[in-house]
This record gives sequence, C-alpha cells and structure tokens, in this order.
Amino acid sequence: MSSDFAMRLAFAHRLADAAGDFIRPYFRKPIAVIDKQSRAYLDPVTEADKGAEQVMRDMIAREFPNDAILGEEYGEKEGGTGFRWVLDPIDGTRAFITARHHWGTLIALEEKGVRALGIIDQPILRERYVGIEGSSAAIICETRSPIKVRPCSSLSEAVITTTHPFEYFTDVQEKSFERVAKSCRMSRYDGDCYGYALLASGFVDLIIEASLSPWDVAALIPVVEGAGGICTDWQGNPIGALSNTQKTDFVAAGDARVHAEAIKRLNAA
Amino acid sequence: MSSDFAMRLAFAHRLADAAGDFIRPYFRKPIAVIDKQSRAYLDPVTEADKGAEQVMRDMIAREFPNDAILGEEYGEKEGGTGFRWVLDPIDGTRAFITARHHWGTLIALEEKGVRALGIIDQPILRERYVGIEGSSAAIICETRSPIKVRPCSSLSEAVITTTHPFEYFTDVQEKSFERVAKSCRMSRYDGDCYGYALLASGFVDLIIEASLSPWDVAALIPVVEGAGGICTDWQGNPIGALSNTQKTDFVAAGDARVHAEAIKRLNAA
Repeated sequence: MSSDFAMRLAFAHRLADAAGDFIRPYFRKPIAVIDKQSRAYLDPVTEADKGAEQVMRDMIAREFPNDAILGEEYGEKEGGTGFRWVLDPIDGTRAFITARHHWGTLIALEEKGVRALGIIDQPILRERYVGIEGSSAAIICETRSPIKVRPCSSLSEAVITTTHPFEYFTDVQEKSFERVAKSCRMSRYDGDCYGYALLASGFVDLIIEASLSPWDVAALIPVVEGAGGICTDWQGNPIGALSNTQKTDFVAAGDARVHAEAIKRLNAA
Repeated sequence: MSSDFAMRLAFAHRLADAAGDFIRPYFRKPIAVIDKQSRAYLDPVTEADKGAEQVMRDMIAREFPNDAILGEEYGEKEGGTGFRWVLDPIDGTRAFITARHHWGTLIALEEKGVRALGIIDQPILRERYVGIEGSSAAIICETRSPIKVRPCSSLSEAVITTTHPFEYFTDVQEKSFERVAKSCRMSRYDGDCYGYALLASGFVDLIIEASLSPWDVAALIPVVEGAGGICTDWQGNPIGALSNTQKTDFVAAGDARVHAEAIKRLNAA
C-alpha cells in the first residue's frame, strides 16, 4: 500500500462517517421526493442524497484538491493525482423512502484506473463493509471482522437475490433472470447495495442485476472480490472501465461453480 | 382495559423480551435448517424458532397456566380463562436466513375470541410495534411513539409491497396482484411481517399477500388497525376466526380510498 493510498484510506472512513451523519436525520422523516426523469419507474433523489454528496465533495476538495471525483448527483471533476473518488451517497433510494435498511453510501477509490477500495456503509445499522487489496472486512458497531463468501457447490443449492423482479430488467433479461432463479434453492427480491455486503459475508450465493451505474459497481466489486467472490457481466467477462453514462449488467457469486452455472443458464436461450 | 388484560399486556412485553434474547445469538450464525415439507419452496424452521416458542410457552404456563395457546411450531393448547396467546416466534424465516431484518416475533392476545393485542418485535433493530385498543405505538430503542398510517388519495400515488413476487401466490393470484401493482406508483417485493409495521408507521400504503396463517394475522391486524389502517381479505371482508390449518389472503391499506381501489382491481378479471 503506497503512503498516498494509505492516507486516502483513512480519509475514506471519514467521508463515510460524514455522509452517514448527514443522512441519518433524514431517514424515516417525510422528505421531498423529486422525479429526475419522466420514466415509468420512480427514480427519486432526495435532499439527503444531494447534501451528503456535497459534504463528501467539499471534504475531498479541501484534503485532496487535485483528486478526480465522479459522483452520482454532481457528475465528474477532473484531477491530476491518478486517484479518482467514485461516490453514490444513497444507493437504494426506493429502500430509503420505504423505510427499509437496504440502502447504503457507496465510496470507491481508483488508483490509475484500478479499483483499489470499496466501501458499502449502512449508517442506520452502523454497518460498514470495506474491500481493499484482496481482503474484505465488516465493521459493525465499531467491531471489525474479516468477511468471506461461503462455498456453494451448485445452483440448486444457491440462494439468489436481485433488487426487484422487473424494474431494472428488459423483458428479455427478466426471462433470463427467471430461468436462473427457478433453478436455485431460494430467491429473494430485495437487497440493493446491501445485498452485496451480505453475499460477501456468506449469507447469499448469487446476485444477478442489470442497469448498474459506474458509481454502483466501483464500490461493490472490491467488497465482493476481497471476500473471495466473483463479479462479471452476464457474459462472464470482467467489468471494465465504464463511461459515466454507461450501465452494465452484473453477476456476483460467492462460489465459482455457482457463477459458471449461472452464466451458462443466463445465456441458454 | 380489564385488570386481567392489563396484567397480560405487561407480561406480553416480557414474552417479546425473552423471545428476542433467545433468538438474537442465532441471527447471522450458521444454523441447521430443516425443511418442514417436501414442497418446491423452502419453509425452514430453525433452532431459534422452536427454542423461542418453547421459552414463551413455558413462561405462559408458569404465569397464566389456564390461558390457551396457539403457536406456529408447537400447535394448540386449550385453556379456560377466555384468553388465548397466538405466537409466531420467527415470522419471515427466509429473511432471517438471508441475514435481512424483515423477520419478527409475532405475539397476539385474544380475549373471548376478539383480537385485543398485537406485537411485532424486531429484536436485532430493537424495534417493537404494539397495537392495542384502537391505538398503535412504536417502541424503538426504548422510546415509545404513537404511529399512524399516512393518507394516500389513490392507487396511482400508492407504494405497494408484498413479501415475494410469486412464492406465496397461486398463478391466478399472481396475475391479480400484478394488476394492482402495475397501477401503483412504486412497488417493493420484500417486507414480511416487518412490512406491516412500516405500513402502520406511514411509509407504505398497501400490502397484498396470500397464504397467511392464523399466527400471522393475529398480531398484524391490531398493529395496522390501531394505526388507523384497514385489514381485509381480497374480497374486502374482515378476517374472521381462522382454524389452525386455514390460510387467508390479506390486504392491508393505510387509506380507505387505496383499499377500495385495490379490492376493485383485485377482482376485476
């Protein structure tokens, strides 16, 4: 770990603390919800979402003024240090506004284009999941423990989850997903970013999603991979660099055997 | 409130405390899972589930030996006092084993066949929802606040939830559910018993489910109705007395306008 990275790692925890402090009072309070697009499904942004990103951007501007930033709410800022922060202050807005706990603050750090750090922070539960340099940890109420995916020998033994049965899938994707899900032992249709923390912790075997943004995958991949899991697209390829408007489909698995079966079945049509 | 009832109300909180103390260490620990039926979907019971019911039954036997008991795990015990306890130690086993927080301990008390008390307890979050005599309250980390459903003028403004998109529905029910869900502003496919606490707290407008057991509805109805909500079957009729093997379909709504529209659309085919 370079000293430049180490400084930023400690700082990343302060970013998560600050975002959590900002967001916490908004949870389960009536808040103004704005539709960003006139799409059929709701994609709300909240005061908490925007405010928390501003808090984090201001901190980065003070501490590391030449680092690049990509945030869900306020877009991109160029940098010159080789480091880029990727921020999603509230991932899982639907979970947030329906008073569930499956939303989280996503913070990632890339060094020269390589994903070096991912944080999934759930400030209400005081749970933070951190992936870095091939290892992941859960920090729950200040207690840090390593986390690992669990072994699972086949799809028929696997617990599969996705955030919603159809909102984020095309019709074709929905059918492909269902083909996999019906082969699994159990399915659950919730999770949002928090689902990946639970997969990395060994409670879920497979997550299949689509329409993930760069600020989603940037934090999720280090947490899952650090815990021994696999993240690819639906073809089984690694998730490469994404442009800021690009979405990706996504498969995360704890066990390579489940991953291989899932990819095969996703593409079986 | 009769003094007989008041004594049992204080005792019901001790039952919930004891169940929570028993269950808490099992959450997120590897536990033995047993399939109760050879059905396609998983209906696991856990050591925590059975143990917590035994703890509660033992407490009732000591304190109110002539009260009747109906529990999900250990069935029925006749009584002679006019009071019956209805217990489901862990409702939402799927949520439990996938490390989510949407499960809860359900405790209800009937007095001469009338639902008099319902408790939805989430011991990990330290949240308890209590419905009694036409009012409901949330006790969150020891702080008690009254809860109320929120107004919602129409289905098109409503947030609808159900626990799973298809596991608990027949094919016909699934289509009916989808017809309602697609008319709503937003849908979410999780919640389990905890969803009813969130509806009673004003964060969700409509829940439509099927295959609920007597030990589910016994606790849910007082919490929802005490907060000003409505609970019926899919035809809009009150949920009457259920035999111990009987399941019921279920609609809970915060606002009568949403309830009326939902019933109409459920039966529109």
